Amino acid sequence: MGGVVVQDIPRASSEVITGLAEAGVATVHEAQGRSGLMRPDLRPIFTGAQIAGSAVTISAPPGDNWMLHVAIEQVRPGDILVLAPTSPCTDGYFGDLLATSAKSRGCVGLIIDAGVRDVRDLTEMGFPVWSKAISAQGTVKETLGSVNVPVVCAGAAVNPGDVIVADDDGVCVVPTADAGITLKTARARIEKEAEKRKILASGTLGLDMYGMREKLAKKGLLYR
Amino acid sequence: MGGVVVQDIPRASSEVITGLAEAGVATVHEAQGRSGLMRPDLRPIFTGAQIAGSAVTISAPPGDNWMLHVAIEQVRPGDILVLAPTSPCTDGYFGDLLATSAKSRGCVGLIIDAGVRDVRDLTEMGFPVWSKAISAQGTVKETLGSVNVPVVCAGAAVNPGDVIVADDDGVCVVPTADAGITLKTARARIEKEAEKRKILASGTLGLDMYGMREKLAKKGLLYR
Amino acid sequence: MGGVVVQDIPRASSEVITGLAEAGVATVHEAQGRSGLMRPDLRPIFTGAQIAGSAVTISAPPGDNWMLHVAIEQVRPGDILVLAPTSPCTDGYFGDLLATSAKSRGCVGLIIDAGVRDVRDLTEMGFPVWSKAISAQGTVKETLGSVNVPVVCAGAAVNPGDVIVADDDGVCVVPTADAGITLKTARARIEKEAEKRKILASGTLGLDMYGMREKLAKKGLLYR
Amino acid sequence: MGGVVVQDIPRASSEVITGLAEAGVATVHEAQGRSGLMRPDLRPIFTGAQIAGSAVTISAPPGDNWMLHVAIEQVRPGDILVLAPTSPCTDGYFGDLLATSAKSRGCVGLIIDAGVRDVRDLTEMGFPVWSKAISAQGTVKETLGSVNVPVVCAGAAVNPGDVIVADDDGVCVVPTADAGITLKTARARIEKEAEKRKILASGTLGLDMYGMREKLAKKGLLYR
Amino acid sequence: MGGVVVQDIPRASSEVITGLAEAGVATVHEAQGRSGLMRPDLRPIFTGAQIAGSAVTISAPPGDNWMLHVAIEQVRPGDILVLAPTSPCTDGYFGDLLATSAKSRGCVGLIIDAGVRDVRDLTEMGFPVWSKAISAQGTVKETLGSVNVPVVCAGAAVNPGDVIVADDDGVCVVPTADAGITLKTARARIEKEAEKRKILASGTLGLDMYGMREKLAKKGLLYR
Amino acid sequence: MGGVVVQDIPRASSEVITGLAEAGVATVHEAQGRSGLMRPDLRPIFTGAQIAGSAVTISAPPGDNWMLHVAIEQVRPGDILVLAPTSPCTDGYFGDLLATSAKSRGCVGLIIDAGVRDVRDLTEMGFPVWSKAISAQGTVKETLGSVNVPVVCAGAAVNPGDVIVADDDGVCVVPTADAGITLKTARARIEKEAEKRKILASGTLGLDMYGMREKLAKKGLLYR
Repeated sequence: MGGVVVQDIPRASSEVITGLAEAGVATVHEAQGRSGLMRPDLRPIFTGAQIAGSAVTISAPPGDNWMLHVAIEQVRPGDILVLAPTSPCTDGYFGDLLATSAKSRGCVGLIIDAGVRDVRDLTEMGFPVWSKAISAQGTVKETLGSVNVPVVCAGAAVNPGDVIVADDDGVCVVPTADAGITLKTARARIEKEAEKRKILASGTLGLDMYGMREKLAKKGLLYR
Repeated sequence: MGGVVVQDIPRASSEVITGLAEAGVATVHEAQGRSGLMRPDLRPIFTGAQIAGSAVTISAPPGDNWMLHVAIEQVRPGDILVLAPTSPCTDGYFGDLLATSAKSRGCVGLIIDAGVRDVRDLTEMGFPVWSKAISAQGTVKETLGSVNVPVVCAGAAVNPGDVIVADDDGVCVVPTADAGITLKTARARIEKEAEKRKILASGTLGLDMYGMREKLAKKGLLYR
Repeated sequence: MGGVVVQDIPRASSEVITGLAEAGVATVHEAQGRSGLMRPDLRPIFTGAQIAGSAVTISAPPGDNWMLHVAIEQVRPGDILVLAPTSPCTDGYFGDLLATSAKSRGCVGLIIDAGVRDVRDLTEMGFPVWSKAISAQGTVKETLGSVNVPVVCAGAAVNPGDVIVADDDGVCVVPTADAGITLKTARARIEKEAEKRKILASGTLGLDMYGMREKLAKKGLLYR
Repeated sequence: MGGVVVQDIPRASSEVITGLAEAGVATVHEAQGRSGLMRPDLRPIFTGAQIAGSAVTISAPPGDNWMLHVAIEQVRPGDILVLAPTSPCTDGYFGDLLATSAKSRGCVGLIIDAGVRDVRDLTEMGFPVWSKAISAQGTVKETLGSVNVPVVCAGAAVNPGDVIVADDDGVCVVPTADAGITLKTARARIEKEAEKRKILASGTLGLDMYGMREKLAKKGLLYR
Repeated sequence: MGGVVVQDIPRASSEVITGLAEAGVATVHEAQGRSGLMRPDLRPIFTGAQIAGSAVTISAPPGDNWMLHVAIEQVRPGDILVLAPTSPCTDGYFGDLLATSAKSRGCVGLIIDAGVRDVRDLTEMGFPVWSKAISAQGTVKETLGSVNVPVVCAGAAVNPGDVIVADDDGVCVVPTADAGITLKTARARIEKEAEKRKILASGTLGLDMYGMREKLAKKGLLYR
Repeated sequence: MGGVVVQDIPRASSEVITGLAEAGVATVHEAQGRSGLMRPDLRPIFTGAQIAGSAVTISAPPGDNWMLHVAIEQVRPGDILVLAPTSPCTDGYFGDLLATSAKSRGCVGLIIDAGVRDVRDLTEMGFPVWSKAISAQGTVKETLGSVNVPVVCAGAAVNPGDVIVADDDGVCVVPTADAGITLKTARARIEKEAEKRKILASGTLGLDMYGMREKLAKKGLLYR
């Protein structure tokens, strides 16, 4: 039932993290074989943010944000807070005070399978949050949870230190050990897509560019 | 089954209402002991509006907006319409014509546990709405409801004249009789938060500012 | 189980289609007797787009976007793609590459009762999409579906070539054969509403403008 | 934020309560003008129970069932516990131990806008519960709530002592002061319905029994 | 906006209808190429019923059951009522009185993308209903809808007279013209499945019975 | 993107598994510190089953049940199949043929964060399933997934071989390595609860049995 804070977690290199941020969620998700995507009901509180960072994970009881305070001490510059409640909750665990504190420690964003509040302030601060809900409902500080333990957040398994990539398409988790190879694959994909984009923009059909017509005919597609 | 219009309702003073608007939903909700918050699936049709006003309440059948016309006659400048359908409904009860009419009477916004339409027009008019849905589905004018009776709207009990506070964080109801003390408490809270914000921005941790370490240790929190 | 592409579909005239786009969803929906509205959980990925076009319909398996490639070949300038999955799905069937291809064929938008990705790119391209979800989850190209067959999309029956009207209020389907008369009715409605808007803006109540007081009294409405 | 237990609450007479139980939810709801119905997602854990009793209300934080223990002391034989969490929650606040305790005090059922567990045991004990969820997730005992204060439970306002009627159709709240008249109206309705049932069972149409044909024709109903 | 009753609708033969009932939803759905299935949130009010019948369709406003009375006059023995509200609604359109009336006309069941009440009585009467909700909320009789027009019910297009098949797996629609061939295909499928069942029961794997191993290997499946 | 079958997985001893089945979900979940519980929307297709077994995990694409056939070969007597789709899906992946096959291999149940069909047959066979949906919608066999890899199923992380406990309260996952100690803790808990049950049944309040009065008073609980 919680009660543990792990202080030493592995992190990917900042070059790899920056590269994954530039690649964006859709590309990174493809690059690692379509794993690690969080549920699509996690939405950004404002559009346009595109970030990556090492996960400082939090397992917290419903309606109790005590562990966020504990977690912020564990944040290093560039990290992202990832909060998974132990049961479904929409309460506003996080607002402008916590954002001020997190930001002062170098935290670059929050992923939370619950609610957030003070979203106007957070937007003005440019502090991005992906959450399941926006709710002014406050929380208590009574029950222990844990920091930097493995969690399941919005349907994705997250280990402490995993690289979190988040943008307008959602949130994706990259295991630390796979971060380098995933970035390499992502970059190769980006190059290939640039070529494809040119071809498609010129009016060539995907049917022809990908050579799909024969396979479709074999499957029995009928044109009337 | 409806059929009553109460014409005389209590209202808080405009100074108090203005003060509550400035305080915003999250602060007001805390200030009155975390009561009166509506469900978080009520969302603003555009961001940035932050209002307060006296509730002119409407109990209306599903898919029937007749009582909105009746209610608009009861609106005084600064009031907010609050519509609770008698069963779950997403229909567009309200659009640009009703907004034009409501605005001309001094109405400053609509809270509706159902749908709204013409949202582009409403946005251009700057008429804020918090709703459960955006839907072009029109409604009929066949069955009576009531105006200015107690309702439950989006999970919160609202009495006619209660102060409604609404912003990007959601919607909160303040009973008329509590409005003054709630504002006082809200202002005290705002002052305290300003101080805390400074301390946290300087890098001091919440753990230290709030003196949480001892209580966490007593509960058995383990650092590894 | 799919496997058919109909190549020749009826289309309304471009004048009628343009007129319906200008009228907008709420007006068109009213003008055709309140039919053809899609579920309100289909939302635009960015606000402000207001379009109409002939439906190129797609019936596709969950998590399989093969038929989108087939459908794009059937698009003529001004058409709108309408994708209905054969069972509920939130996967991102469509992203910037498909949008590039669709746009190069003159496609003006996508309606999809499933997910879409690369929404930042789509927004920058100005390619409007109304979808149930935003999700980076990719799809496969393994199972046939059909193109230009009747589908049910987000609760509305759509026949190939039907006029789709979409704006910030949602999405509405107009059968090809009714498009002309619907436009006429819509325009008459717009004129009438302009008059009503003036009257309401001047402070006259709907109760009086619509002559509702007598009917309300007959129904037994009590003023206290 | 809670912290109050009201010990003395009004209760309707046991004759009236028994009568309302016999009438059942649908009839009682009609009899009091269609008010007081809880949201339909509150479902019984087993079918066939049909009860009524005075509400001992509980306002409890998410994931914290401490106040249930406090409330059970306030139960008198025939009472029903009504728990409304202060924010949405599916945790299992109540299981076989609490049911044993509640039953020993004469409690006849639980209405909870949250979760319940040990449902097999509860079913074997014949202790009926209407809940939003079935969940094994346990709760803590850390934060105060209140007992016998007004609450909003599953969309319905409940005052302590109000008569709760619950059966396979859902849950309805009858204000104490209205219980007698509501029962009278309910009984009259039951009698009338018995007559109607006979007439309809004989094959006479509702169209004729209710004399609807003329009104339908006036509204313009066309038979083809 | 409704207002039409079509009195003469095509019906499949009672032999075909009986055959489809025996085949059940899953088999019939497969037999017609996996089309016509309603959304899975339509659930039976009691388990074990397995029926088929010709659809008498109803398009009704939210919270208004007037058209049910009109529709019952159109019912012939063996028919099934299919009600689609014009917008999402959970109200209890149908209860024991209407069931008594429908049953006396030979109606064998109700499919409704909305709510139903008196479920205990309906269960005792053995009158099966597939609905989205169980709700005691009553409805009015004020606004016209239509009977025996094409509707979309729970995501499936239904034409008047289409064969409805319903059992514990859900509800499926079979177009009248396809009913005969669908039954033939369904019966062939049932025979084949009986053979397969024997083989699988003996311990033979689907991998071998269907000869899947080679295709899996070709796709690259790795055993570790 | 899948494509792996792990053939050798760890399993807890059958004594421990049997013990955990007897303890049931609520007790086991408590005994391991309230972790491993699946989302409460996973419900049994019939009540009364209470099972435990080693997880044979399946990661499968939406609408594609090919890997179920592959997984059944990996089942040993007493195992439970656990299927997690790679994106949200309600399709009926599993019906009576697959149940026949699974049963013949000794499989004792299925946990699936998607849909199931032929529920009447499965009920008659006594083959228990916990699923998110009941749906007749069939699936294809086109795209590889994986068997016996770590998955997240209904919000809980599952490793191959983990002990799954399932009953009317839901589904809980016990890591293989913790199974023995969890059982011990569970048994101790059961004993304690038996004593508590007796005390509570005699009318002693939880307030007194747990000695809560002082702590409540300290927190400031007021009796009026």
